[in-house]
Amino acid sequence: MSPTIGPVLVIGTGLIGTSIALSLAEAGVETLLADVDARHRDEAVAMSAGRALQDGDDPRVVVVAVPPRFAAQALADASGRFPFATLTDVTSVKEHVLDEAVRLGADERRLVGGHPMAGREVSGPGAARADLVHDRWWILTPTGSTDDERLQHVHRLVMACGAYAIQMSPEAHDRAVALVSHAPQLLSSTLAAQLVEARDDEVRVAGSGLRDMTRIAASDSALWTDILSVNAGPVADVLEGIILDLQEQLQALRATASRDADAVRRITEELVAGASGQARIPGKHGAAAARYEVVEVVVADRPGEMARLFVAVGDVGVNIEDVRMEHVLGRPSGMIELSVRPDAAERLRDALRERGFDVRR
Amino acid sequence: MSPTIGPVLVIGTGLIGTSIALSLAEAGVETLLADVDARHRDEAVAMSAGRALQDGDDPRVVVVAVPPRFAAQALADASGRFPFATLTDVTSVKEHVLDEAVRLGADERRLVGGHPMAGREVSGPGAARADLVHDRWWILTPTGSTDDERLQHVHRLVMACGAYAIQMSPEAHDRAVALVSHAPQLLSSTLAAQLVEARDDEVRVAGSGLRDMTRIAASDSALWTDILSVNAGPVADVLEGIILDLQEQLQALRATASRDADAVRRITEELVAGASGQARIPGKHGAAAARYEVVEVVVADRPGEMARLFVAVGDVGVNIEDVRMEHVLGRPSGMIELSVRPDAAERLRDALRERGFDVRR
Repeated sequence: MSPTIGPVLVIGTGLIGTSIALSLAEAGVETLLADVDARHRDEAVAMSAGRALQDGDDPRVVVVAVPPRFAAQALADASGRFPFATLTDVTSVKEHVLDEAVRLGADERRLVGGHPMAGREVSGPGAARADLVHDRWWILTPTGSTDDERLQHVHRLVMACGAYAIQMSPEAHDRAVALVSHAPQLLSSTLAAQLVEARDDEVRVAGSGLRDMTRIAASDSALWTDILSVNAGPVADVLEGIILDLQEQLQALRATASRDADAVRRITEELVAGASGQARIPGKHGAAAARYEVVEVVVADRPGEMARLFVAVGDVGVNIEDVRMEHVLGRPSGMIELSVRPDAAERLRDALRERGFDVRR
Repeated sequence: MSPTIGPVLVIGTGLIGTSIALSLAEAGVETLLADVDARHRDEAVAMSAGRALQDGDDPRVVVVAVPPRFAAQALADASGRFPFATLTDVTSVKEHVLDEAVRLGADERRLVGGHPMAGREVSGPGAARADLVHDRWWILTPTGSTDDERLQHVHRLVMACGAYAIQMSPEAHDRAVALVSHAPQLLSSTLAAQLVEARDDEVRVAGSGLRDMTRIAASDSALWTDILSVNAGPVADVLEGIILDLQEQLQALRATASRDADAVRRITEELVAGASGQARIPGKHGAAAARYEVVEVVVADRPGEMARLFVAVGDVGVNIEDVRMEHVLGRPSGMIELSVRPDAAERLRDALRERGFDVRR
């Protein structure tokens, strides 16, 4: 595969750039590395992600993996410096970056937007891994003017990285991530923000539902301000839909005081719609959301207890599709929820009880 | 302890009622059982939760554990039938039920609202467990007219069940659960409802953030319609605050298009407030939210792999504070996130790597 896509120049050897370079290098593709911070580039070289870019190098594909606010300029610069190269990037908002790059002089026939869905909470080349993007979706957003041949170059690059390409327009990409990532982030923060003024005994009785809904509210505020600002339009559109629905629910709640059957029906309808929407979210391995059965076991909160449980599970030969841990207030134990295929649940329960485990359901 | 609170009559031998009766019986308290469905009562009796209520029985405390819409009438009936008994219930909305009970003739001096925070997704006496309410918060809501002595009866009952009493007014209780449970439920459903009309390739790229935020949207729509309708006022108040915040964010997002620095600042402020609010949610064992360090390990998706991991963790002697499993698209493996005390993280990583595990961070 190497001769058809290499050499590939990765500009920006942070977490994503270095991971992509490592992945390409592993696949036998010649990789060239550049970073405004030579130490980052050298660190990536030392990790065998590729060699430093030199004068006279002629990359076939350039992957711009710099922070979002520098991406458009980097694409335009690369377009001028490497007039035959295919150009792509990895930023999480597409329309704005691509428009800006073209405005700054990037050749749009050679330009293919990209977004590997593989962010992690860490950064820097040191955290990079060849398989960070393996088996991940990688959205490709050709512009209206992108040459087919250039798009194919980037498709091959995605394949060489072991990822799966999904093709969308830049606008469709931005709407999709607004819906499944950016607006949910803002909603999580807004819900969590209601707790700032709450009384201690109010937050004290919070359960796992609230914890799950506000987990991402702990994310980096500066990073998310950037993302939300750059994708402001599509996020605002999703938010508008959510606000309209919530206003309708608010009216329905106010109306239930007068025993309005229609108001109650509207609440039910929203809850039912929510359950339908939730069921559409892909489950494990990107497959359609599967319905697993949950087996609940209480384990003591000390080293070795989880081992004892999973050894027993392994003995029975049942595969664990998902695992959750719910801590019980004030008690040195936790409830482990093991999701398994429905046909294996009863067998697992029996086997665990036989081995003396406290199986709840 | 028994002579000071028993005999206790539990009316309604479903999951919660039978669990409370089992817990009291275990603590040596005499328990009497009643249910409109004699089979449910007999099932609870067969589980040693107590004996069937007979004519002439004179319970000192009556616990009404019937479905919410029957609770007020049951409290009023019990008040008339047992003119010396202390009366309490277990419904998840308090002001409405208590007001209604008094209106129907319940003696408010003997009335103490109660709400053990221990619901499960299953129901019926068969699912009951003596320790369902052990170590759980149990909110008590005396009315303005409740006699102190009656309140102490119920405090002792909560203690006998191994739970922890928190005292609030009925109004404060309803506001608290609206904030930490009912409004989040509606928000989760509303977010999930936005996915109903989404395109397949949009929901396909959803990640774990959206999955966490919409998990509770899969809950029972009929049950939640009841809860939201009965607690409509406090839920509406919380929802109103959320809508106001979201409208402000919507305006800020629309304004960022014109590079409005103030708009961007307002987005950041909401994200920062969200992180602060999130940090207030209690962590494990009801303690202040602890910050654990996450160790990430990739495991193959087949029986025995989790066992191998947890055996290694047990060997190292590190306690797992929380566990999450993130599935990687299209690949038979998952990322296991193990939360451990920060001082144990590096030791665990080293030990797991030594044993050949694919430790990511």
